[in-house]
Amino acid sequence: MNFSSKLLEDAVNEFSQLPGIGQKTALRLVLHLLNREPEEVERFGNAIIKLRQEIKHCTICHNISDNEICEICSSAKREKEIICVVEDTRDVMAVENTSQYFGVYHVLGGLISPMDGIGPSDLFIDTLVQRVSTTPVKEVILAISPTMEGDTTIFYLYKRLKAFQIPITTIARGIAFGGELEYADEITLGRSIVTRVPYENSILK
Amino acid sequence: MNFSSKLLEDAVNEFSQLPGIGQKTALRLVLHLLNREPEEVERFGNAIIKLRQEIKHCTICHNISDNEICEICSSAKREKEIICVVEDTRDVMAVENTSQYFGVYHVLGGLISPMDGIGPSDLFIDTLVQRVSTTPVKEVILAISPTMEGDTTIFYLYKRLKAFQIPITTIARGIAFGGELEYADEITLGRSIVTRVPYENSILK
Repeated sequence: MNFSSKLLEDAVNEFSQLPGIGQKTALRLVLHLLNREPEEVERFGNAIIKLRQEIKHCTICHNISDNEICEICSSAKREKEIICVVEDTRDVMAVENTSQYFGVYHVLGGLISPMDGIGPSDLFIDTLVQRVSTTPVKEVILAISPTMEGDTTIFYLYKRLKAFQIPITTIARGIAFGGELEYADEITLGRSIVTRVPYENSILK
Repeated sequence: MNFSSKLLEDAVNEFSQLPGIGQKTALRLVLHLLNREPEEVERFGNAIIKLRQEIKHCTICHNISDNEICEICSSAKREKEIICVVEDTRDVMAVENTSQYFGVYHVLGGLISPMDGIGPSDLFIDTLVQRVSTTPVKEVILAISPTMEGDTTIFYLYKRLKAFQIPITTIARGIAFGGELEYADEITLGRSIVTRVPYENSILK
């Protein structure tokens, strides 16, 4: 692209390094910012810089936090003996949005993926084992996506945790609510028949 | 959304005010920035702030510029007596990318659009008339999108400029190169038959 201004070019190049944003979209975003008030743009830029400089990770669950211990881990209302293991912060937010879970979390920071060179030692698995071995834990819920990497991670976590003899559960898999049977994939539909549940158990109490 | 961090929430909210970026995309972009080096993120934030604070508009053509007079208007290589009138900076870049134009520009800053409350006085039309009346001009090219607003603006500009008795041209309209006739809309195809050109004129010299 032929930029008439070095400042413009710099800003467009920075934006186009973000995932899913090409040069044309970056230019559109930058020209949009040029039409905003200088104070607004300054607030935008500073929010990003401040975020990166000041953000912490909770020392207990590794979730993104403003403090050493995150709000969930420090809340008196949360059940500390139930740990929900998730891949990343987005999954914590997804589970929190359901308003159905009142325990605490453990953020792995990724999934085991030999293809991408990510092994168990790259994730916060040792600290999970430590939490389970040093604090009283009643249940570990593995809320991990049922993908290849997810299943590998679940299997590894299960092997590491089963010695502690506490219940290890995974989130229920099956046909999504509102989903049509005829459009479901064979594996999901097949497994959901094999792992069918009594009607009374399928309804929310 | 349930954010575990106020810093995270602020950054996501700032991002989601950009056009075409919702909360989920904003979160993805922000989490991406969190994985980058702090210096990189600082450079990103500062590039945006600096752009908004220091950017200028060329006093001759109103294009975005780092200086009072833009690179194109101050270049000795450009033909100053041919003015290409465009809607905004993006169109200047589009024409520049063709490497087929060697005159100068005039950026209107928008198009006449009564629906959006944009009249001729909101655009840099008076300064264009002034350029034409005070400097020697051999041709005015109206490189404006053939939309409803574009055609209105072209008609208005033509009325304002015709008294100066200089050639006023518009960019050629017709079937795009590589376009298939059967998929062309009726208006474009119909007009391109009516305004057909001798074969010798249709090839690039």
